[in-house]
Amino acid sequence: MKARLPALALAAVLGAGAAAAYAQVKPEVLVKQRQAKMTLQGKYIGPLVGMVKGAVPFNAEVAARNATYLNALSPMAWDGFDESTKGEKSRALPAIWTDAAKFKQFQTQLDTSTAALVTAAKGGNEGAFKAAVGEVLKSCNGCHDAFRQN
Amino acid sequence: MKARLPALALAAVLGAGAAAAYAQVKPEVLVKQRQAKMTLQGKYIGPLVGMVKGAVPFNAEVAARNATYLNALSPMAWDGFDESTKGEKSRALPAIWTDAAKFKQFQTQLDTSTAALVTAAKGGNEGAFKAAVGEVLKSCNGCHDAFRQN
Repeated sequence: MKARLPALALAAVLGAGAAAAYAQVKPEVLVKQRQAKMTLQGKYIGPLVGMVKGAVPFNAEVAARNATYLNALSPMAWDGFDESTKGEKSRALPAIWTDAAKFKQFQTQLDTSTAALVTAAKGGNEGAFKAAVGEVLKSCNGCHDAFRQN
Repeated sequence: MKARLPALALAAVLGAGAAAAYAQVKPEVLVKQRQAKMTLQGKYIGPLVGMVKGAVPFNAEVAARNATYLNALSPMAWDGFDESTKGEKSRALPAIWTDAAKFKQFQTQLDTSTAALVTAAKGGNEGAFKAAVGEVLKSCNGCHDAFRQN
């Protein structure tokens, strides 16, 4: 086994695992990781929005798969909103750190709405699925309105 | 609900959902999505490698959480290796498209090894966990050696 990957991976070690240690990951790395999560969410919500709008036909298999991916991705960014990243270029607003309770509320809402989306998508009822996509988008947009620069 | 997110998300719709339609997503977007998946994998494998090396103490809770995330992330990049991306700047080697069977084999190996890692991490046996991390790294490095530019 080459040492390349472990060495690279080790660079991120000291700042992850324990919340107190996150500040040791470089702020620009934390921002990159946050944005990576957003990129993948966009990848998997896109086709679902297309189904809701009728731009693409409803596909129960894709709906269930993407819903599962979105629910899995849901928790993967929040630990990257460390105060050390305040000076980094990103669309994150300072309110993230001054209204942590509200920010946390949106995190929970995304978890809950994507879990409900998984159930709806697997149920195969197109109407329930479309309503569930709407709930996920509400949590996305609600959080972006409050905590992301337009 | 603002239309902002749905509009953004819709931009990715036409190229996802059905395999045949992937070519319609801009190649640079596909590459960005692939790299986002790699970024998140690095985020979550890093602390596990640290535990294996003894750089950070073994933490069963973090081990199980990160293992679950890695297994969830495992399938999220492969559909982005569309032939339309051949001309994009990335470390992907042409062998990806000339030896698709071997590439697929590594995809399966990552799925399998991260699933085994979840089981090992949840079992709480440090030795089994460390061995399972080694197996995941073998699949990472094996694929990188064959299909990624150094």
